Order: sequence, then C-alpha cells, then structure tokens
Amino acid sequence: MTLRRQLAQLFVVRASGFGTDSQRRYPRWELGNTELQHWLEQGVGGVILLGGSAADLALRCRQLQQWAGSTDQNRLLLCADVEEGVGQRFEGATWLVPPLALAPLWHTDPPRAEALARAYGRCSGNEAQLLGLNWVLAPVCDVNNNPANPVINVRAWGETAAATTALSRAFLQGLEGEGVLGCAKHFPGHGDTSQDSHLQLPQLAHSRERLDELEFVPFRAAIAAGVGSVMTAHLQLPALDPERPATLSKAVLSQLLRQELGFNGLIVTDALVMEAITKHYGAAEAAALAFEAGADLILMPADTDAALTALEQGCLEGRWPLERVEQSLERRRLALARCKPSELDTAAALSALANCASSHGALAQELLQLSLQQQGCNSAPPKGPGVNLIRVDSSLACSPLPLAAPALLRPQAAGFQATLIDGRSQALDLEKLPTGPVLLQLFVRGNPFRGSAGADGYWAELVQKLLAQQRLAGLVVYGSPYLWQELKGLIPANIAIAYSPGQMPGAQALALQSLGLGAASYEGGFTN
Amino acid sequence: MTLRRQLAQLFVVRASGFGTDSQRRYPRWELGNTELQHWLEQGVGGVILLGGSAADLALRCRQLQQWAGSTDQNRLLLCADVEEGVGQRFEGATWLVPPLALAPLWHTDPPRAEALARAYGRCSGNEAQLLGLNWVLAPVCDVNNNPANPVINVRAWGETAAATTALSRAFLQGLEGEGVLGCAKHFPGHGDTSQDSHLQLPQLAHSRERLDELEFVPFRAAIAAGVGSVMTAHLQLPALDPERPATLSKAVLSQLLRQELGFNGLIVTDALVMEAITKHYGAAEAAALAFEAGADLILMPADTDAALTALEQGCLEGRWPLERVEQSLERRRLALARCKPSELDTAAALSALANCASSHGALAQELLQLSLQQQGCNSAPPKGPGVNLIRVDSSLACSPLPLAAPALLRPQAAGFQATLIDGRSQALDLEKLPTGPVLLQLFVRGNPFRGSAGADGYWAELVQKLLAQQRLAGLVVYGSPYLWQELKGLIPANIAIAYSPGQMPGAQALALQSLGLGAASYEGGFTN
Repeated sequence: MTLRRQLAQLFVVRASGFGTDSQRRYPRWELGNTELQHWLEQGVGGVILLGGSAADLALRCRQLQQWAGSTDQNRLLLCADVEEGVGQRFEGATWLVPPLALAPLWHTDPPRAEALARAYGRCSGNEAQLLGLNWVLAPVCDVNNNPANPVINVRAWGETAAATTALSRAFLQGLEGEGVLGCAKHFPGHGDTSQDSHLQLPQLAHSRERLDELEFVPFRAAIAAGVGSVMTAHLQLPALDPERPATLSKAVLSQLLRQELGFNGLIVTDALVMEAITKHYGAAEAAALAFEAGADLILMPADTDAALTALEQGCLEGRWPLERVEQSLERRRLALARCKPSELDTAAALSALANCASSHGALAQELLQLSLQQQGCNSAPPKGPGVNLIRVDSSLACSPLPLAAPALLRPQAAGFQATLIDGRSQALDLEKLPTGPVLLQLFVRGNPFRGSAGADGYWAELVQKLLAQQRLAGLVVYGSPYLWQELKGLIPANIAIAYSPGQMPGAQALALQSLGLGAASYEGGFTN
Repeated sequence: MTLRRQLAQLFVVRASGFGTDSQRRYPRWELGNTELQHWLEQGVGGVILLGGSAADLALRCRQLQQWAGSTDQNRLLLCADVEEGVGQRFEGATWLVPPLALAPLWHTDPPRAEALARAYGRCSGNEAQLLGLNWVLAPVCDVNNNPANPVINVRAWGETAAATTALSRAFLQGLEGEGVLGCAKHFPGHGDTSQDSHLQLPQLAHSRERLDELEFVPFRAAIAAGVGSVMTAHLQLPALDPERPATLSKAVLSQLLRQELGFNGLIVTDALVMEAITKHYGAAEAAALAFEAGADLILMPADTDAALTALEQGCLEGRWPLERVEQSLERRRLALARCKPSELDTAAALSALANCASSHGALAQELLQLSLQQQGCNSAPPKGPGVNLIRVDSSLACSPLPLAAPALLRPQAAGFQATLIDGRSQALDLEKLPTGPVLLQLFVRGNPFRGSAGADGYWAELVQKLLAQQRLAGLVVYGSPYLWQELKGLIPANIAIAYSPGQMPGAQALALQSLGLGAASYEGGFTN
C-alpha cells in the first residue's frame, strides 16, 4: 500500500446522510457522491454524516462501506455528532433530552442519574450500531460552568467537574458496551468559553492548576474508562501552549494527552473547516500541524487533497518519524477491532430499530418527566382567542416543529393561533399582534453557529411587557435552563409556566400538559 | 376467500411514506403501523403514500408488499399524488414544473409541448416504478378555465379543453408506457370551481351541453387512450344529478362514465375523508353510496372498519348485485396485470434512480427554461444592504426552501437579508422592516387546503407601496401565472422581474439568474 493511501485512512470527510447530491443540506461542506467515491477509492478511512432519516442513514452507511470495498479487516469509520440520541440527527430513531437535563438529578440522586446516563448511552449506541455507525462523537466532556457558553451549554453533562465526570463516564460505558466507539470531547475542555469556535478561536486564560482541577477531570475519567477516541478543541490555552490552539499543539496532544494523561486511543481533531482554524491556518498546514502535534485522525480538512499532500510531504521530509503513521494506523485498527460490525441489511436494521422503539421511548419519556419543571397554577387551562407566540432558531428546517407538533396543534385547539418568530422574521411588534392572551413558547438553547446562549434580557423584557398588559396566558421554555432561571422569577403564581430541557414533540406534550393543554404523551411517540 | 376479505381488496388506505409512526406528518389521517399491518392482513388492497424521501418510499413500498403477503398474482396497489414528478412528493427523485407550465408552449408549438408532456410522463412513471409505486394519481384532466380556482390551478395541463386534452393524454401515454397505472382526475371535471372540495362541497351549475363541450373532453381522450383509472370529483353537478355529488352518483359513475363514455377500467373515489363528503355523509354510508354508484375502489374512507362493514352489509342485503363485487375485483386484477412489477431491492432501485438523474435533470431544466418569463432589465444586479422579503405558504416543512435554497443564499451574498412571511407571521409592516431596497420573492400558487388562489390584490398593493418608496429592487413570482399577470404590468422596465411556474430550488436559480444573481443552475440539481 502506498504511503498516500495509508495516510488517506487517517482522514474523515463529511458527507450527507441522504443518498443524492441534491438532498445535501450543506453542499458547501458535504462532498458530492462523485467526489466521495473518488476519496473512498483513494483509501479515505472515515466519513462523518449529517442529514437524512434513520432509513436514509442505514442505506447510506451500507452504500459507503460498499464503495470503500470494506472487508472484515478494514472498514470505514462512520461517525456522527449523535449527542442526544440518534433521533436528534436522524429522524425515526430515538431523540433524547440534552445531557444537562440529568445534572440536577445527579446532585440529589447520583446512582439513579448515572443509571439513566448509562441507559442513555446504551440507547444511543444500540441504535447507532444497528443503523451502521461505528463511532459516536459523544460524550461532550466539557464542564459547562459558564452559562453564557454559546456552543456547549445543554450539550454538556454537568456544570461541575464531579457531575460531568460521573454522568459522561456512565454514558460512555453504556455507549461503548454496544460495540461502537465513543469520543470524549473537546479536549482539554471547552466549557468555560463565551465564544463559539465555529466562528472564531476562543481563548481560555486558566492556569494549569485550575485546568487540572476542573477541565481535565472528566477526560481523565473517560480515559480511565477506556474511551475509544478523544476530540481536540479549537481553543487557545496560553498556560499549555502560548502559540498554538490545542488542536495543533504538540504540548497539548502529545505531552499532555498522550504522555501525562496516558491516552493511547485515537486522537481526532475537531473539524478543521471551522473558522477558529481556517482564519489562521491554510488547509494543508492545519492538517500537517495537527498530525505533527499528535492527532491520529484529521476530521473535515478544508481541502482533502492539499491536506493529504501535506501529510505525505511531511513524511517524506522527515517532519515526523515514519512510525508516527504506523502508530496512528495501528490505533485505528485496534479501534475498529473493538466495534461490533453491522451485519443486518437495511430493512432488517430498521426492523430491529422498530423493535427497540417502545423501550427506548420509555427511556425518552422518563428523562422528559424527571427534567420537567413547573411553576404556578392556572385556575383553568388557557383559552383563546389568543396568540401562540413561538420563538425558534429557524422556522425553516425546524426539527422540533413538524406540522403535527403539540406546540402548534394544542394551543390551536384551545383557540391560540400560532405566530412564529425567528432570525428571519420582522422585529416583533406586540402592537401588531392580534389582541387577546399570549401563550409564549421559547425554543432557546445554546447551539453551534448561533454565537449566543439566548439569555440576553430580550425575553425578560417581553415577558414584563405582556404581564403589564395582563396578556401572558402561559410560558414554556424549551432548552436553556439559564433562560428559565431568568424568566420564572418574573411570573406570578396564578400563571402556569413550564420548562423542559428538550425541544422535541414529546417535550412539548409534557410541558403543555402541565399548563392544562392536552395529554402527557405525544401520539407520534418521542422521536420527531 | 370471505366476502369481507374480497371487499377489503377494494379499499385504499392512507399511510406515511416514512417507516415509523413518529415520523408521520399527518397522524390524523395516516394509519400507524400496527393498524396498517392489521388492515393488510385483512386483505386491504391498496395504500396511498405521502411523506418521506425517495429512499424512505422505496423501503416502505417493499415493506408494505411484504406485510400484505404479496405474490405475483395479487399485489398491493401502491399509489401517490405524484402530479409534478416523483420528487414533488418524495425528495431525492425528480421534481418537475407544474403541468400548466406547458400550456403556453402548446398554443404555439403543439408537437414540442406534447413531446415534453410525454417525457414528463415517462420520467414520472419510470421513477415511480423503480421506487415501488404501481399507480400514479395523475394526470389532472380538469380544464383550469377559472383563474380563481384554489385547488386545481397550476396542477392542470391547460386552460382550454384542447390544450388540457392534448397534454394530459401525452403525459398519460408516457406514464403508462413505463408500466404504472395512471389516473384521470377529477371526473367529471373540477376546473371551473372557486371552492376547495377539501374544505366544502363545490357546486358546478353548467348544463350537460357545456360539460360535453368542455369538462368531459380530456376524460374522453384519456379513456380512448386506455387510462387505467379515473378518479371521481366531490362536486355537485345539478345537470347530472340533482341529489348526490359526483363521487356518490350512479348517474355520473355508472350511466355517464361507464355506459356513455365506455370506461371499463378502475373507478376510484377521491378521498372520502375530504370535508365535501364528511360534512354530509357518514363514513359507512359514503363508502356504500360510492360503491353503489359504480366506484370500484374506495380511497381513504373516514372509518375503514365501518366502511367495509357497510359494503359487506350492502352485498348481503342485495343492495347491489353480487357480481358488482366480482366486476370490481376483476378490474383490479386486470389493472395490476398491466403493471410492471418492481423487482429491484431498495439499494438497486435507488442506484437505478441515480442513473436516471442526469437525463431527468436535463428534462427538468428544459421545462424550467421554456417556462421562465422575464421583464425589465437592471442596469446592475441588485445590491444590498437590503431586504429579501420571501412569502411562502408555510415556513415550517417548506420544501422549496432548504437552507441552501438559491432564494435564500443568492440574495444574501448580494447583501439582502431574508425576512420570511407566511400564514404564521405577524402582519407585514413595511415600516418595521430594515431600510434599504427590497427584493420580493412570492411563492404563491393554488394548493389544496389553502382556499385561495393567491391573486387577491394584496401583493399588488405591496408592490405599489414599494414602488412609491423607490425600494423595489426586484420581483420573482414562483407558481401562479395569474399573480404574475397581475403584478408585471405595475412594474417599470428598469426593474428586472421574473416568473417561474416552479417553486423548487432549480426554478429559483434560473429566475434569480435573470435578475443578475448567480448562475442558471442550482448546484444541488433540480430536485430539492
């Protein structure tokens, strides 16, 4: 096998979970099928998938393994950012509440919270494995100790090192027990940033002592638990490396992670197309620096060909010893050997998935129930005519709001007509809304690319205006616990309000039931 | 076989094209899998599908045939409202401009228009057959001679009997040549109504002479061409039957359609759950009346069990001769015998679909190009900062606007930020929009359940306001030729404007190119 072909195995490129080019949701980042087939034929060893239903994904995974000419000895690493159940990304599988939903329970009942985190991991791993993924890019091991963090937020397992450690480890055990690799991310810890590395390179000014006490703790535990991979963060940490971001830092990857923390599994970069990297490094240099620093796998290079050539060049020029390549290939082989291969065809895999639906649905419901918060009490359920004012990140491609979503249909049945607000709406003007009571439903949480955690005072002001006009008929916050904290104190006890960390239809059903609108469960089940 | 089981073969129930219950977009109408399996085991003979990608559909069709225990001798009829290419309903297949787009060409170049309609039928039939549908509920044979028609509109092949006849027949020949059944609808002609039978029962006061000269003409031609099925309209036509709507009228179905017009294929009701029927007839009685009137197949009864029992009862009580059942079953057998069975497994079917993508994409592009209309000319492309004001029916589940849609990305690249208006937005307030030029994109067409054809003066008023403020930077109408007619006369020649009958991303690319924004083709291809 040529050197270039060997190096290609260390690359993970991005593709859509949909089968046709025209269905790609992000054609800027997702390779078309022709290019994808080309790279698989060149030996590229991994694909990260986003988009499509569970059925699309099952077909796609099998197609990609076939295109790659996979054998029992060498298969593709197929991964996805499945952090909140496979159904979060691939409709038709199980969609679970965000991890942070379990943190409050852990502080009162650690064994139950950990058992649920383990079940969360088993559910995710089981469904991923059935569909054909052998690598789940979770758990997030960042300690979300900064409520203004725009990108980690509810994706984390806790706000303290202890909770994050216990829950992410339990998740990991459940996940990897199903025969898929996990991924502790984002090393050395992305929890205390108020910037989004998708958009810029955040700085973390903490001392080595503080990092040891807080940020590193969940990673140490994940390593001790045998995690299959660790993903690097695009973060500048002057205490560890004054020059390079963690992803490109030999001090962080080789000295700290490999030697000090003793991690001998796969180190994978976070996506190199993120602006934290591309603003400062070219595609070729970023990949070479990452490999030189100690990464085994190069995720989403901005230019696959240039990056691969840079690694080849680096080998030929002796930029690193040739055994570095063999070590990374060997780690990849060992990781794949730990995976349970998917032996079912698509129809059988989907049928097996359907057979788990009821037990996984029960887990989803239990998580929703324990994380629901309520306050106040209506004398009667809200009654229209009125306005159902819904805030979402984007009404286009809005997975929490299928047309049959409880957040739409239940208020409608009570006489509340929906008005949607998102980043593409006109500025909200209360005077121009129809008159009558307002039921406010806020789908707000930290999410990559938003650049804000959502709790910036805007909604508090709106709530106060509605209260002053005696128009607030109810409030539900879906997602951010920080926004809920901010708003719930403003609202008198005669108005029922609720919070769910989840945004999916099942969360809506449960939260609205607590306001007197409908039953606790969603007829469509707990995935969207 | 029991009588009940025989009768069950004459029923067509509705299911989602998605494989799991939780993915159903219309759970009110779509049977869950348990109920669906029950009915297929009871012998129900047909399923109408909506929802899901082409991949979901391929899996689903095979699953349903398996659940039904299909054999070479008896298979399910699997159908969908595929009127504008399979990609209109099932993402990943080819999405074509609406049929009415070809009517203007037919008036100047009939052979070319008919050749294209034939290719349109071949493309639809070929993709349907590959995916597993054996019955396409098209062509619409209604003459759209009423621009205010809220439900037929651009789904028709023409505004005159001659155009509708020639083009729908050519489509049908192309379609059925691929081994799938067609369906001439909605007999005896739904073109001249200004009401939507999804919401109420429209009246058509025309004389028999007028119907003979106009409405019947395309149906006579379809019958002469051997169409496999005819769908009934939920219309009251006093000249034909003073008492009953066409769907339930013996005068219309048996005397007119069977005897006078000599149609001996399958007569299928339009969906019996539509309010035109359910407002006036119970589920059992509607099905019994339809069968008694002469229908062979009962589509989407409001209550399958009650409807089946009513047919059984009717047989036992001698409400119709028993041979009526045998005749309908025989017609169903003959129809199925004309279908080319789908012998490919899902992966092979999708691969065959991918192999057609380039020729079908070329057809889609040709249809877009010949139906594009432009007026005026900018001295330079529109340049922001400004507002990209987009009107859609619903921003949720909005198939024309994936996040990578040209209608979003191209204006954005020129400095126009998108503002979306739909039925769930606050009333539009120009004063509250950001300042600067406005690019107006109107996705407006007649569609079932809207109750309006869209050209009601609202948009003309807005255009005039924008012109008065010298803020109109450009206009594109996607869909309704009637709205385009209304608006284009208002706009001076120094403002470039465009019209496409299509709403898909390919239509956006082409229309925006004519305004100076980007290239003529959509990188994602011509399906969405």
